[in-house]
Amino acid sequence: MLQLYIGNKNYSSWSMRPWVLMTDAAIPFTEVKVRFDAFTPGSTFKRTMGALVPTGKVPALVIDDGVDDGVAGSSGPQVVWDTLAIAETLAERHPDRQLWPADAARRALARSLCAEMHSGFGALRNACPMNIEARLPEIGARVLAEQPAVQADLARIVAMWTGCLERFGGPWLFGERFGIADAYYAPVASRLRSYALPVPAPVADYIEHIHQRPSVAAWVADALAEHDFLDFEEPYRTSRG
Amino acid sequence: MLQLYIGNKNYSSWSMRPWVLMTDAAIPFTEVKVRFDAFTPGSTFKRTMGALVPTGKVPALVIDDGVDDGVAGSSGPQVVWDTLAIAETLAERHPDRQLWPADAARRALARSLCAEMHSGFGALRNACPMNIEARLPEIGARVLAEQPAVQADLARIVAMWTGCLERFGGPWLFGERFGIADAYYAPVASRLRSYALPVPAPVADYIEHIHQRPSVAAWVADALAEHDFLDFEEPYRTSRG
Ligand SMILES: N[C@@H](CCC(=O)N[C@@H](CS)C(=O)NCC(=O)O)C(=O)O
Ligand SMILES: N[C@@H](CCC(=O)N[C@@H](CS)C(=O)NCC(=O)O)C(=O)O
Repeated sequence: MLQLYIGNKNYSSWSMRPWVLMTDAAIPFTEVKVRFDAFTPGSTFKRTMGALVPTGKVPALVIDDGVDDGVAGSSGPQVVWDTLAIAETLAERHPDRQLWPADAARRALARSLCAEMHSGFGALRNACPMNIEARLPEIGARVLAEQPAVQADLARIVAMWTGCLERFGGPWLFGERFGIADAYYAPVASRLRSYALPVPAPVADYIEHIHQRPSVAAWVADALAEHDFLDFEEPYRTSRG
Repeated sequence: MLQLYIGNKNYSSWSMRPWVLMTDAAIPFTEVKVRFDAFTPGSTFKRTMGALVPTGKVPALVIDDGVDDGVAGSSGPQVVWDTLAIAETLAERHPDRQLWPADAARRALARSLCAEMHSGFGALRNACPMNIEARLPEIGARVLAEQPAVQADLARIVAMWTGCLERFGGPWLFGERFGIADAYYAPVASRLRSYALPVPAPVADYIEHIHQRPSVAAWVADALAEHDFLDFEEPYRTSRG
């Protein structure tokens, strides 16, 4: 049995990745949503997640196979945290789902792209935090004009996606199968849309296509239904649009 | 045939990880050192690495199996970048080396710890950049007194290492076999030593033990032999000690 701990769907880009991945691959799991009341030490969010994982962050995957987990001196559920560790663990548990590309060279490239996302794109992430329901084209234009580092992040995304789509023929980053790399970049596609950052046609098509994917559309629908405005996740708005 | 592109051994913590890992596991590779002249766009380093990998960073692993790499429309060497992607790719290519723990539960935990390092510990990394030859205990004491975020990073490292060493019995983080997690935290052990950050006895022992590991000792010896003082990697010194 798998449980996935996630944050607010409108805001939590890291939570979105494994949720979309598991939903897309039809890996059964129970969603446990821990609302972002605040990220301060005494917040309910931090106390809840801090009791579960040492980082006190979402996402976290709880695996309860009902068997001793084989670790000396422990038994019971195993907790896996950090998106990339969750993705690798899922890929390993469900080889039939081909969450990574089956071809070794493509797989190595997909891993490079996901590890790059895992530690990179700081400028884009800071300037354009995920906010699924928001439409902030003026902010996008301003941020892009003022911040060369955001321009560089955007250029890298465009080069990466157009490169993959061309090389592997689309419609997904590594060809015909939606996989970890697509789930990893889904929140980026959402940002590009919210902030209306300018992209060439193949990238615009990919953004549209990924939003139509049922797993992504389901997350987005849940996000829109949340109606939860969080000040500390909203550098650009004072209320819902 | 494998080639590993790395930066200056005294300073490049990310390069150290796969180098130590491959050396330790006796995976044959050729080292290609690209000196950090600067990280500005026109620098030799950026031009060299930029021609090889889209991030323009080290480490990068070049795999040349002398066969078409199976990717449509391409053949020849494959380039893998970002430390975690390199580690996973090596683990997959060399299952006999058991670079990840053989037990699934330990492996999931090891992956969580490495992914946590991959995107975390920003305060410690900023305040205490790796500088193998330097001994900066006063800086360490000051940074620790002034920056609660560095205290939190240190506390997390101490809890992680003591937890693993107790649970799995040492001498390495996941028991008797030196693996990816140890290689991932080796540069952290180096920082704790350079800045003389206070740690409990089991952690001090682990730091000592990892520095005695031949693969780590070999990297450190090369770093000490470098004699290359780089201003932009030296927030605290104006010349070699
Ligand atoms: N590297 C982590 C990042 C997780 C992360 O930053 N999650 C955010 C929500 S999207 C969080 O829980 N923040 C709470 C905090 O920073 O205290 C991963 O990949 O899972
Ligand atoms: N997430 C990357 C980080 C690599 C990295 O930051 N490397 C540094 C040297 S330790 C670098 O090449 N910096 C050059 C730059 O920032 O332009 C990885 O895990 O490989």
